[in-house]
Amino acid sequence: RLLEVLDELQPYDRAEIYRSLPGKFRLPFVLLLPLPDVAIIVQELEHAYQEEIISVLGLEKASRMMAYMENDDLADLLSGLSMDRTQGFLTSMNQSESESVQSLLQYEPDTAGGIMTNRFVWIKDHYDVREAVDKVKSFANYAENIYYLYVLDDDKHLVGVVSYRDLVLADERDKISDIMYRRVISVPVDMDQEEVARTMERYDFIALPVVDGDNRLAGIVTVDDILDVVMEEANEDIGKLSATGKGIDFQTSAVQASAKRLPWLVLLLFLGLLSGSIMAGFQHTLEQVVALTFFMPMIAGMTGNTGTQSLAIVVRGLVTNDIDRKTLLRLISREFAVGLIIGVVCGLAVAGISYLWQGSGYLGFVVGLSLFLTLLIGTMTGTLIPLMLHRFRIDPAVASGPLITTLNDLFSLSVYFGLATMFLSKLS
Amino acid sequence: RLLEVLDELQPYDRAEIYRSLPGKFRLPFVLLLPLPDVAIIVQELEHAYQEEIISVLGLEKASRMMAYMENDDLADLLSGLSMDRTQGFLTSMNQSESESVQSLLQYEPDTAGGIMTNRFVWIKDHYDVREAVDKVKSFANYAENIYYLYVLDDDKHLVGVVSYRDLVLADERDKISDIMYRRVISVPVDMDQEEVARTMERYDFIALPVVDGDNRLAGIVTVDDILDVVMEEANEDIGKLSATGKGIDFQTSAVQASAKRLPWLVLLLFLGLLSGSIMAGFQHTLEQVVALTFFMPMIAGMTGNTGTQSLAIVVRGLVTNDIDRKTLLRLISREFAVGLIIGVVCGLAVAGISYLWQGSGYLGFVVGLSLFLTLLIGTMTGTLIPLMLHRFRIDPAVASGPLITTLNDLFSLSVYFGLATMFLSKLS
Ligand SMILES: [Mg+2]
Ligand SMILES: [Mg+2]
Ligand SMILES: [Mg+2]
Ligand SMILES: [Mg+2]
Ligand SMILES: [Mg+2]
Ligand SMILES: [Mg+2]
Ligand SMILES: [Mg+2]
Ligand SMILES: [Mg+2]
Ligand SMILES: [Mg+2]
Ligand SMILES: [Mg+2]
Ligand SMILES: [Mg+2]
Ligand SMILES: [Mg+2]
Ligand SMILES: [Mg+2]
Repeated sequence: RLLEVLDELQPYDRAEIYRSLPGKFRLPFVLLLPLPDVAIIVQELEHAYQEEIISVLGLEKASRMMAYMENDDLADLLSGLSMDRTQGFLTSMNQSESESVQSLLQYEPDTAGGIMTNRFVWIKDHYDVREAVDKVKSFANYAENIYYLYVLDDDKHLVGVVSYRDLVLADERDKISDIMYRRVISVPVDMDQEEVARTMERYDFIALPVVDGDNRLAGIVTVDDILDVVMEEANEDIGKLSATGKGIDFQTSAVQASAKRLPWLVLLLFLGLLSGSIMAGFQHTLEQVVALTFFMPMIAGMTGNTGTQSLAIVVRGLVTNDIDRKTLLRLISREFAVGLIIGVVCGLAVAGISYLWQGSGYLGFVVGLSLFLTLLIGTMTGTLIPLMLHRFRIDPAVASGPLITTLNDLFSLSVYFGLATMFLSKLS
Repeated sequence: RLLEVLDELQPYDRAEIYRSLPGKFRLPFVLLLPLPDVAIIVQELEHAYQEEIISVLGLEKASRMMAYMENDDLADLLSGLSMDRTQGFLTSMNQSESESVQSLLQYEPDTAGGIMTNRFVWIKDHYDVREAVDKVKSFANYAENIYYLYVLDDDKHLVGVVSYRDLVLADERDKISDIMYRRVISVPVDMDQEEVARTMERYDFIALPVVDGDNRLAGIVTVDDILDVVMEEANEDIGKLSATGKGIDFQTSAVQASAKRLPWLVLLLFLGLLSGSIMAGFQHTLEQVVALTFFMPMIAGMTGNTGTQSLAIVVRGLVTNDIDRKTLLRLISREFAVGLIIGVVCGLAVAGISYLWQGSGYLGFVVGLSLFLTLLIGTMTGTLIPLMLHRFRIDPAVASGPLITTLNDLFSLSVYFGLATMFLSKLS
């Protein structure tokens, strides 16, 4: 009865039931289910849950269960285990199964090869529609839900693609080579997953074929996994922009979360003290005109803010744009112009306000000019640093917001107190 | 010849050709193409390009071209035009076409209704497979590429779903009502697009049916549009976290980009000056112990940084998690514990450093205790403010990083100089 209800549910809902069970009922529940149903649940679960399930199944049953999993999910599961255990499972699986998963394990996890599955239905270019439909029928339970059939020549080169819909619409006797689409869009096994996602987004496909260096079909990437990639990369960017460290979610423990956040904070702490030591160098100026310190939070804050804005624009722009020389020059000059406009507006405003507040025209001048200069500097560091990192193939998001902010603190304090010292005789 | 080449290209590549043409060749090029091909290109283009194309086509030709567009893209195009022009196009289209698009225009753009198309193939529950296949064949060019057939009863209620794959695998004489899946997962027309995306991600579907209050099928949302939604929402979150304002990309002009960024910066400028006026209240303390200012950038910076970290974690967590009371309490106590850990570690470190630097144990004590307290405050504001906004159905990302940072400046300066004033006699 339970099994019948479960059978009607979508994989996500079955996994939710598992997650919501109290600890002591989870494993008896799993032992009750047939292995194909266990596989469906395991595929949906987080790694910690997966581990507890394969432990309770034991080596032999777990290996049989793995045969029902999709290859990409299985590869992800295995790559999270120790070498020893992985080896154990691989040897107790049947050989073709084991080879097929092993070939996935060789790819970097954030490349096309790392997110593809290599269980898919392919057809030969000399088939007719009848033969293709027969092949689909016989492999229906073996391959992941796919919506395109990739057409291979005798050397396994990818030569065309046919959708299920084309099959439905075609006549039984039509040749596949006559109805297939030949300008297949494919991605290489080593393409970065973010670029694979961009390709999928541009062409609005449901699946993309992945090919090796000789245009031989190595696997397919499906859109559901691309959706995960896009969410994951966005979280990664936000995590880096806020210097949060990788992979803190609502489930992470306080100790783990602190351990991930602290290294960044300690680095920023020393940079903050460096700012302080710059100020210490201007101790004489500060003692003469204490009012100078009143504008410090504003100047340092604003420089950091405009830098963060530019940084965010550049980091996200890099996700959706191809960067050529023209785009680059236009972007840099645009941000320079933005820095000028913002600098003039805010600089003038603040010069007026500080004159009214402290009653000194020179102070107004120093504060306004400082803000103008530091806003320009802040905008340019926020633009140029991520672009330079991108150029050197470092993820620009590591130039985290707090890092840019803290660097800009250094610049802005130097400029501000430097200018103030130049005009010290007029200020005191 | 040109047309033949074009015909083989994917829509994205056709649009890229259009974008790369020099201005004076673009419109002659469009006038050369048959209207269905124009429609394919228009669907892929940004709004400004779309406008230039419909202007050159003229009312009559543009209306005929629109008949070839997918309804969701057409509704997006029309909703970007003036009321007058939209009305003009709607009246010169044929009536059923016009009504069908108008019914899409009534939905908010960021809801299921706003991203769905209402051109899709549906079948009746009393059909057999043969009838279903016939219907698909006859509507093949009319509906958007879909992979599921939704099954309606005689009152248009959504009662089941069948995939193309099911059709291929079934026998011609099978009843649809026997092979259809009955526990259809659907979303209501007014569901927020981010929640629609979450549903799609969880169930790994290619399309989701959208229903009205009576479970009548109103349209379908396809996964390619969900991919766009996910990217758009991620950019929105990053834009808000960095107080950048909406929709600045690499193409935005400097003046527009400045206009979007300035309002935030001006607000933050005044908050920065407010911090200054708090310091002015401690003028006496500052005059006595100038060395206090040296630790200001570090304390203010660190408080802002930890607040930004917590904010980022909460904002992204809200995208992927359902928030119930339990999750909420666990998250808040987790972040409180993180604040304590981070506060103790950084507070002790900085107390030691400042004692060594300035040679005063009391200064070390004041700086360390201040940092401990402000890190705890910073972590909690970064957590609680977005959660409160979420509670009141305001997008938590508007509690932008710079806003949290600047607020934390206010708190941290008050705490720091407050403590310093309490211990002033020991410090000077
Ligand atoms: Mg999944
Ligand atoms: Mg997967
Ligand atoms: Mg993988
Ligand atoms: Mg990456
Ligand atoms: Mg797309
Ligand atoms: Mg998969
Ligand atoms: Mg990335
Ligand atoms: Mg599209
Ligand atoms: Mg729309
Ligand atoms: Mg939204
Ligand atoms: Mg998914
Ligand atoms: Mg669409
Ligand atoms: Mg959102």
